Amino acid sequence: MITGKNYIGKQLSAKGHNTYKTFNPQLNIENTPIYTEATKEEIDEAVSLASKAFKTFRNISGKKKSEFLNAIAEEILALDSQLIETYCSETGLPEGRAKGERGRTVGQLRAFADLLNEGSWVEASIDTAQPDRQPMPKSDIRKMLVPLGPIVVFGASNFPLAYSTAGGDTAAALAAGCPVLVKSHPMHAGTGELVSSAIVKAAEKTGMPNGVFSNLNSSGIEVGTQLVSHPGVKAVGFTGSIRAGRALYDLAAKREEPIPVFAEMGSINPVVILPHALKNRGEALAKTYAGSITLGTGQFCTNPGLLLGIKGDSLTNFIQNLSDEIVKIAPSCMLHPNIIGAYETNKQKALSQPELTVVADFDTDVKTNYARQTVTTVEGRSFLKNTTLHQEVFGPYSMVVQCENKEQLEQIISSLEGQLTGTLIAEDDEATQYVQVIEALQNRVGRLIYNGVPTGVEVCPSMVHGGPYPASTDSRFTAVGIHSIKRWVRPFSYQDWPNNLLPDELKNENPLKISRLLNNKPSTDTI
Amino acid sequence: MITGKNYIGKQLSAKGHNTYKTFNPQLNIENTPIYTEATKEEIDEAVSLASKAFKTFRNISGKKKSEFLNAIAEEILALDSQLIETYCSETGLPEGRAKGERGRTVGQLRAFADLLNEGSWVEASIDTAQPDRQPMPKSDIRKMLVPLGPIVVFGASNFPLAYSTAGGDTAAALAAGCPVLVKSHPMHAGTGELVSSAIVKAAEKTGMPNGVFSNLNSSGIEVGTQLVSHPGVKAVGFTGSIRAGRALYDLAAKREEPIPVFAEMGSINPVVILPHALKNRGEALAKTYAGSITLGTGQFCTNPGLLLGIKGDSLTNFIQNLSDEIVKIAPSCMLHPNIIGAYETNKQKALSQPELTVVADFDTDVKTNYARQTVTTVEGRSFLKNTTLHQEVFGPYSMVVQCENKEQLEQIISSLEGQLTGTLIAEDDEATQYVQVIEALQNRVGRLIYNGVPTGVEVCPSMVHGGPYPASTDSRFTAVGIHSIKRWVRPFSYQDWPNNLLPDELKNENPLKISRLLNNKPSTDTI
Repeated sequence: MITGKNYIGKQLSAKGHNTYKTFNPQLNIENTPIYTEATKEEIDEAVSLASKAFKTFRNISGKKKSEFLNAIAEEILALDSQLIETYCSETGLPEGRAKGERGRTVGQLRAFADLLNEGSWVEASIDTAQPDRQPMPKSDIRKMLVPLGPIVVFGASNFPLAYSTAGGDTAAALAAGCPVLVKSHPMHAGTGELVSSAIVKAAEKTGMPNGVFSNLNSSGIEVGTQLVSHPGVKAVGFTGSIRAGRALYDLAAKREEPIPVFAEMGSINPVVILPHALKNRGEALAKTYAGSITLGTGQFCTNPGLLLGIKGDSLTNFIQNLSDEIVKIAPSCMLHPNIIGAYETNKQKALSQPELTVVADFDTDVKTNYARQTVTTVEGRSFLKNTTLHQEVFGPYSMVVQCENKEQLEQIISSLEGQLTGTLIAEDDEATQYVQVIEALQNRVGRLIYNGVPTGVEVCPSMVHGGPYPASTDSRFTAVGIHSIKRWVRPFSYQDWPNNLLPDELKNENPLKISRLLNNKPSTDTI
Repeated sequence: MITGKNYIGKQLSAKGHNTYKTFNPQLNIENTPIYTEATKEEIDEAVSLASKAFKTFRNISGKKKSEFLNAIAEEILALDSQLIETYCSETGLPEGRAKGERGRTVGQLRAFADLLNEGSWVEASIDTAQPDRQPMPKSDIRKMLVPLGPIVVFGASNFPLAYSTAGGDTAAALAAGCPVLVKSHPMHAGTGELVSSAIVKAAEKTGMPNGVFSNLNSSGIEVGTQLVSHPGVKAVGFTGSIRAGRALYDLAAKREEPIPVFAEMGSINPVVILPHALKNRGEALAKTYAGSITLGTGQFCTNPGLLLGIKGDSLTNFIQNLSDEIVKIAPSCMLHPNIIGAYETNKQKALSQPELTVVADFDTDVKTNYARQTVTTVEGRSFLKNTTLHQEVFGPYSMVVQCENKEQLEQIISSLEGQLTGTLIAEDDEATQYVQVIEALQNRVGRLIYNGVPTGVEVCPSMVHGGPYPASTDSRFTAVGIHSIKRWVRPFSYQDWPNNLLPDELKNENPLKISRLLNNKPSTDTI
């Protein structure tokens, strides 16, 4: 049952007076449960519990923590149809998407559980002593990664499961040994409460300390602001808009003790289509891209919002084909009236630029909260001059830029802000002629895709989801995949520390049988 | 010959009108060369050259880059006595220290050269495609670390070689594939110019692009401010005071595109001496610590500025012994009149706190610019209340805090700001009784030392030099050792990228024979 309360550690709590409801965009009505926003007192209590929990949680073994993560996965699955129905009622997304995203969420939790079970992720490194070294003896020095402390995670509007309450940020932080305080996303507060109940149950079943997880309801910016400003909080994970992400980054940077903020923000995900590919496969590409642009009503951070080609008949034909294909696709629902409102506003802002030509606009009537997909085109020269056109229109929108030549193409790519992805569509014989274009693209993105679409972010060790600002606030980390754990840890050294006081990861006997750097060579040996 | 000019890439340049000289603190006179501060135009040119150089430098192989780093080491050694003499004349430090620091600097450069030669540092990871996976095929995804772009390095006053022009930050950044712009430290501008000439020669000899390195003279804050604000600069390395480091951090955070700043700043390096050790080895410890506190005139960031013990006869005796030992040590010269001025001011600020008792003060006359070592003591309760006493006094100064009991000791440690190091002095039988004290200490520092002194930072893979704020602005990285390269790189993914267009590190054939993560298992195999 959904209570509408906060989880302050394992306790349900609703001391505040600000309440709100979630919204069903398909039915265009409010959902019934009433949620109570967390008070300052509740936030303080949650952070205090998290700080206390950290003292024990950081020392809990990888094996025990992996049991916790696997138990969260089990408890989420046990929520069964109640979770799926709540998810759909709060997002307007179809059941298949809900189940798919649940699978991704559970898969992420289990991937981190496996990482902990194996144990080598701590990057243990041992340099043994050289007492006879001249002119100075060398100490025994051992290093491993240790958790930062309590982490605040902001749920993402567009991924109520995989990037929210028990999503990638939370799974990575818990795996690292950091307690998590979730700032619940108001649009899917019910989904958030259900998943929180699963985490709290899993924590109790596997003997985790109270305060290892809290879930704080919020309808405005106050709860998030208080959390990020709280001295007990040591890092922040966020997925959302540039405006909100930058505000959190600025807040964290101004603290007496500044803390890291990993914000995954906007991206228009440039796609470069080279001439031979355009000529040989223009029709098929138009179909593929019409699908990618409208996938999930365009509500993916990897949505292809910018298509770049070199002027000519092939590009003209492609634009026509894309236009024909995209209007064939039935419009779909957006997550919330606010989201569709922003889509319309941002799209109108783009369309009001005189340089822009609309080539496809789904102009028949659609249901309330359903988005009309749109494709526009612009000359390369105009795009370079007008940076309003560089801004993201979150939703099923894309713009085709018609470049004069290879040089202008490179110039345009270099003029872009940082992006999550860049895609190259090419025939195998022509890519080598565009090395500078490719390098310019690489310099602006976190992931390069060849002859594919940017939508669809595989969860695997080699994935990078992040990129130069404003794709993310710290391009040195990925938000997806097991290595995203590195956002929440720091290296720590022990010098001449007695073996019995060292953590298992660094003991002479290597009791966990992990791979370590031993005198700068990988090894699973004992010492 | 020292020209007093800037290196804008390989060109000597002095377009400005602001000039300054360095100072010989031993002789208490200015040195003769005149240095010309870089102008805005010169800074712009240096950054522009660096951005251009980045386009080729980032693609230069590890083997070629390692030749460059080894050549820098050779050219530094070739400067021979001119470098040592200039160093001594600008710092007041003895020749032995100059040669030792040169050895460390050359060793660091060679360690990074070895890292590049071996090649596995890029953390290559390959997840092969699964075209038949259900419900969706899996793409081939490959990841490695790539350089961020031009880096600004601020030279440190207290390490004119090892943490300055060709010091750890520069060596790590060049190894990563990032061009470097050094903001030369005004106190050792001559040493800086000589080392810069070595880097420029090495770059030319090994065919590196012009602009891979520039050296910019400065006497005030303007040059540094302009560099950190420049859109072409992608990250900053700094070693120095909290005030200056925080100012740079704030400046970088306020940019339209915020950039990472790794600032290694202040630390008072708490040393906890447990009762049995104090009783059994108090006299020897006093001698050891008198040496550590005065080493290099206390001008090390790991100087032990805070000694913590539990009240009693053993602690009283220790304070007396430390007091006796420290005044036996001959005072030595500080780096610059400004440094000794700050030492005296900060020490007087501490001494003016009524709770503090001076137990050792070298009060006989000393030569100009020579520092008088001082030891003070304070009650635990008073220390907790007065945070002025928590502030660093950079120089040969230390304070002994007399704690009431184990609980107060833990409370005091938990009240400290972040530190580079924490030291535990204990007999083997008693450490296990102080687990909470040790954990509190671990939570506040980057490195824990057992029965040693914090001064002396070994350059090895397991070293962490960094720690919670304000020890550093980002505890997720170390400033010392080969892994410090991670500050200047970001992970980057290729999806379904053609083998012939992939960098060697990610090619099927594994031509560099590096260790890679292949479907999440370490491997040197081909695919």
